[in-house]
Amino acid sequence: MDAQDAGTDPAWLPPAALSAVGARRTLIRGAGGPLVDTVYGEVAEACARFGGSVERGGRGADAAASYGLVLDVGGAGWGDESFTHARANATTTITAPGERGLLHGLFHLVRLGEGAFQGERAPETHRPALPLRMLDHWDNVAVHPVMGQVERGYAGGSLFWADGRAREEPQRIRAYARLLAACGINAVAVNNVNVHEVEAHLLTDRIGEVAALAELFRPYGIRTHLSVTFAAPMVLGGMPTADPLDAGVKGWWADATARVYDAIPDFGGYVVKADSEGQPGPFAYGRSHADGANMLAAALEPYGGTVHWRAFVYDHRQDWRDRTTDRARAAHDHFAPLDGEFAANAVLQVKHGPMDFQVREPVSPVIGAMPRTRLAVELQVTQEYTGQQRHVCWLGPMWSEVLRFRPDGETAVGGLADGLVAVSNVGDDPYWTGHPLAQANLYTFGRLAWDPGADPRAVLGEWIALTFPDAPERLVSGLHAVLDGSWRTYEKYTAPLGVGFMVQPGHHYGPSVDGYEYSPWGTYHFADRDGVGVDRSAATGTGYAAQYAKVWADVYESPRTCPDELLLFFHHVPYEHVLHSGRTVIQHVYDTHFEGVAEVEAAREVWTSLADVVDAARHARVAERYEEQLRSAREWRDQINSYFSRKSGVPDARGRRIY
Amino acid sequence: MDAQDAGTDPAWLPPAALSAVGARRTLIRGAGGPLVDTVYGEVAEACARFGGSVERGGRGADAAASYGLVLDVGGAGWGDESFTHARANATTTITAPGERGLLHGLFHLVRLGEGAFQGERAPETHRPALPLRMLDHWDNVAVHPVMGQVERGYAGGSLFWADGRAREEPQRIRAYARLLAACGINAVAVNNVNVHEVEAHLLTDRIGEVAALAELFRPYGIRTHLSVTFAAPMVLGGMPTADPLDAGVKGWWADATARVYDAIPDFGGYVVKADSEGQPGPFAYGRSHADGANMLAAALEPYGGTVHWRAFVYDHRQDWRDRTTDRARAAHDHFAPLDGEFAANAVLQVKHGPMDFQVREPVSPVIGAMPRTRLAVELQVTQEYTGQQRHVCWLGPMWSEVLRFRPDGETAVGGLADGLVAVSNVGDDPYWTGHPLAQANLYTFGRLAWDPGADPRAVLGEWIALTFPDAPERLVSGLHAVLDGSWRTYEKYTAPLGVGFMVQPGHHYGPSVDGYEYSPWGTYHFADRDGVGVDRSAATGTGYAAQYAKVWADVYESPRTCPDELLLFFHHVPYEHVLHSGRTVIQHVYDTHFEGVAEVEAAREVWTSLADVVDAARHARVAERYEEQLRSAREWRDQINSYFSRKSGVPDARGRRIY
Repeated sequence: MDAQDAGTDPAWLPPAALSAVGARRTLIRGAGGPLVDTVYGEVAEACARFGGSVERGGRGADAAASYGLVLDVGGAGWGDESFTHARANATTTITAPGERGLLHGLFHLVRLGEGAFQGERAPETHRPALPLRMLDHWDNVAVHPVMGQVERGYAGGSLFWADGRAREEPQRIRAYARLLAACGINAVAVNNVNVHEVEAHLLTDRIGEVAALAELFRPYGIRTHLSVTFAAPMVLGGMPTADPLDAGVKGWWADATARVYDAIPDFGGYVVKADSEGQPGPFAYGRSHADGANMLAAALEPYGGTVHWRAFVYDHRQDWRDRTTDRARAAHDHFAPLDGEFAANAVLQVKHGPMDFQVREPVSPVIGAMPRTRLAVELQVTQEYTGQQRHVCWLGPMWSEVLRFRPDGETAVGGLADGLVAVSNVGDDPYWTGHPLAQANLYTFGRLAWDPGADPRAVLGEWIALTFPDAPERLVSGLHAVLDGSWRTYEKYTAPLGVGFMVQPGHHYGPSVDGYEYSPWGTYHFADRDGVGVDRSAATGTGYAAQYAKVWADVYESPRTCPDELLLFFHHVPYEHVLHSGRTVIQHVYDTHFEGVAEVEAAREVWTSLADVVDAARHARVAERYEEQLRSAREWRDQINSYFSRKSGVPDARGRRIY
Repeated sequence: MDAQDAGTDPAWLPPAALSAVGARRTLIRGAGGPLVDTVYGEVAEACARFGGSVERGGRGADAAASYGLVLDVGGAGWGDESFTHARANATTTITAPGERGLLHGLFHLVRLGEGAFQGERAPETHRPALPLRMLDHWDNVAVHPVMGQVERGYAGGSLFWADGRAREEPQRIRAYARLLAACGINAVAVNNVNVHEVEAHLLTDRIGEVAALAELFRPYGIRTHLSVTFAAPMVLGGMPTADPLDAGVKGWWADATARVYDAIPDFGGYVVKADSEGQPGPFAYGRSHADGANMLAAALEPYGGTVHWRAFVYDHRQDWRDRTTDRARAAHDHFAPLDGEFAANAVLQVKHGPMDFQVREPVSPVIGAMPRTRLAVELQVTQEYTGQQRHVCWLGPMWSEVLRFRPDGETAVGGLADGLVAVSNVGDDPYWTGHPLAQANLYTFGRLAWDPGADPRAVLGEWIALTFPDAPERLVSGLHAVLDGSWRTYEKYTAPLGVGFMVQPGHHYGPSVDGYEYSPWGTYHFADRDGVGVDRSAATGTGYAAQYAKVWADVYESPRTCPDELLLFFHHVPYEHVLHSGRTVIQHVYDTHFEGVAEVEAAREVWTSLADVVDAARHARVAERYEEQLRSAREWRDQINSYFSRKSGVPDARGRRIY
């Protein structure tokens, strides 16, 4: 199948992915419902292609031994998401208390393929570790003069909106919903968290367009959410205030929310970026963020909706001269004191690191600091700072490290959070994600949200097996070769040792070591002729390290114990400082930058060697992006090395060319 | 008069400027013509206001002693631009062989005011040193997605175009033409040298809109020129080539030009930016720039038109790693070998410096290197790199230095060139130029084009006297205090010692020391921990210094003889290098940056003290811009000082605060 011809790539659901299911005689048993209809439709379509058959029966129908597959749903309406998988007497069964579980069970079988229909299998119950697995689209309705149709989008236009209007392409959105369901995602927000004038109206007079999207997502068990502006009562309601404690404001939101649920009975809730990078919020009225979130939570509560309140609050007009302010501290400073004050249906949405989706950051100290608050951890699937889908950078290992991190030394992030949210990397590109291999990031996100403890490399294996059915071993190992280590490769040739932000301002693609050094954004490296890095220790720095529980505060406090990869995030050290690796900081910079480029060269060679086992269009698209990745990696290498060579005066120990 | 109310500020032609002329009994004698009508109209309007009278008579009319002013034009049609001014027997006379000279003579009287009507005055003949005194508008017809309506415009929208259409505001354009004529400008180009798709059509199907502008400029002796794309035969004519030696191409241009002259009989000619920053040009066909220019010159020649061919040709996709390429060399490398090959009606338009309108550059070596070519020197009145009309930066002294420079040690630039051209700083802002004091730059440009040897401070005095009639001495001296030294002040707090380009990429406002350091634009400073600057010597550098005649090549070749203010343009020197001033380079950087900010603070104080002698709206506008200038100057000071302090490790000898 040629993606360009079809308009959309089948990604991890090519027809062959359902061949095992479609070859069976299947009984779907139990109560009906829209998701059961979806399951039936999936199985029936697969049977038409692969020779099996499917019947439906009531809960009491007899599962004769002659059925190869029985999908059994108990109860009615929206049930929970669990399912039980078993196999006995040559019959595979999926038993689910509700239809959402049944749908998950179906895609579980898809992943197992023929393996689901072999031997015996004792009952295993699967359930998602995180109830909320959400994808946020930073899609604008109207094209933004600077940010375009999709803010930080690298895959063409929006699936939902074009030039101010809703797109009328239900087929593509339905195909998209199906892909999301197949990796376990159960919620989407359909517009940018920066809510501009046009987008504000989605909440009121344009709610019908959101409802039309919800219709398309609903059959795949996905609830639709909306980003709203905190100033909506003023912008849309003509009120003089948006004060969250004002009775009129509360009433306005209650009315608006009632109308939203009239249009979308299973509406998921609101996403709010308040008091952040210029967006309005409760600070204007001397109210806390708990006041703001709880006011919206109260409006949503009668309908079972949730407010996602982003914790991305910091001073983006900082003075670079002021060394006492530390952006990394901001979310903890603002939110930790509010622990326990948020409503039960308010979710605080916290970026995984304290800064902004850099290739390497410590885990945000907010995540361990608010045990009495529902938290969602926000990841960035769209590769804003990790190559913008022109570079191969599979983020599974990074996200896995975050989810396995134990803020208190005991419970992992994946066990503390209520949800995992990611900024989408999808657009109207024929491959959905621009770079065909970036599909793996979206798939991996969904699967890690379901099971944060999963081995990311095994998840990648699933993606490969689904996306490239019947792939020869050479292709499987080739894909692993170019993807497995691609995040660490990207880290090697970009900003070193956790220092972050050495990107071109604005668009954030390509290197600019000092690009943000004298800016108001709070993202500095403080490199001088003697050393580099930010002192965030409690003893001599900004005190950020002390925002962690003692188990980590002690580790981060000293350069002697701080992990190498985060050294420059926590400490300002001389260029000749010796890392745990035995190398000096400056030699590490040189070495990793030469290594990173060499690794891209090697990956490109591997990809070239796969030309005969990948369809031509996909191979060409990836090959073309490798050219750009290699050019860009060399630019990174040379700029970073030149910058630090000129500044430190220390030559490369191996005498390689530095400009 | 409140500029905001009237829509346009009277600038240097407030009604009072014509009070002396308007109080006389005047005879206009000799042949008629449209410019004589203009002169008559000006005098009549002034008389209506100030009590004088004006009559017209034939050449033989008797100039009775009872006339206070006789304006005497001889011959008919377009004459030359000279005029003779005399006074005897209580009658002031202006005698001009042609009507253009008569108009210049009138404005000469305006500048002299009552002084023109006192005592006796032996005949003095005035004529412009440069026949071509042209203002180029970088105005787009359609709003460009990045550059907007006016490329590098800081004074609102275009006077001529808005959102793809011609503006229908003849009153304002007529007022503008009058201001230009009053300072001696005699040519305008009405669209951007970067000719995009929409603008290309001005040459053909939209020539009527250009003709309408020409109608408005013509009564003030100003010829209209058009920027055209070299690819016009392809873009507009559907031809397969734009090869300047192709007979079809030549024919296309001949036909197109004939139609232009049908619409605009006194059309000035074409302005062309070819093979420059992505614009098409003759290189694509293996032809020289003389081939390209001469082809257009041939099309224009039958009608007396001129092609202005810009010499701004360089590699804007340079690799920063490549130290052998030097953008400063490019114009001389490309054009000097072509000396003598350009047609008589081709003018090579050369930027005054080898780079791009920095606050300090040496004079372009092209200017002395092409004695057999007609040259126009291009200045930038719009303050792209000199504060964008948010900073006070009166450029008269810089331009005067350029015009007085003697490339061969003998003849000054002002005597070598055929024309002076400037990029306009005007838009639809009520003050024309955004910053009211930036009007002085436009006026000074026109006057220096007329007389390149003029004392710029005297020209500024003229501007003050005209713009602020009956100003108390305190205002006159205050305006001199804030304007006279403002260019050197700006230089002090921005990029030091001729090094240039330490600006934010793209928009070019505010500091970014490394903003262009690793870019493809060829604008580097090569600062490392030991020193800074570009070695352009012949002995060890790029050889640029040797592009000058020996008298200058010898001076620039060595740091010992190179003027301090150009040291880093020509040499890479250690931070401890001692300047002729006795200070080290690094201490010079610190000192000048502290001084520059202090000078802005002082200028702001002076301006504040003038509140009672400047109209309120104008005072407020300037005061508001001083706030921004001061903020920006401090930002420059601190970024530049921090950058070099961090890099050099050398402390400020005076222990001032460096961040």
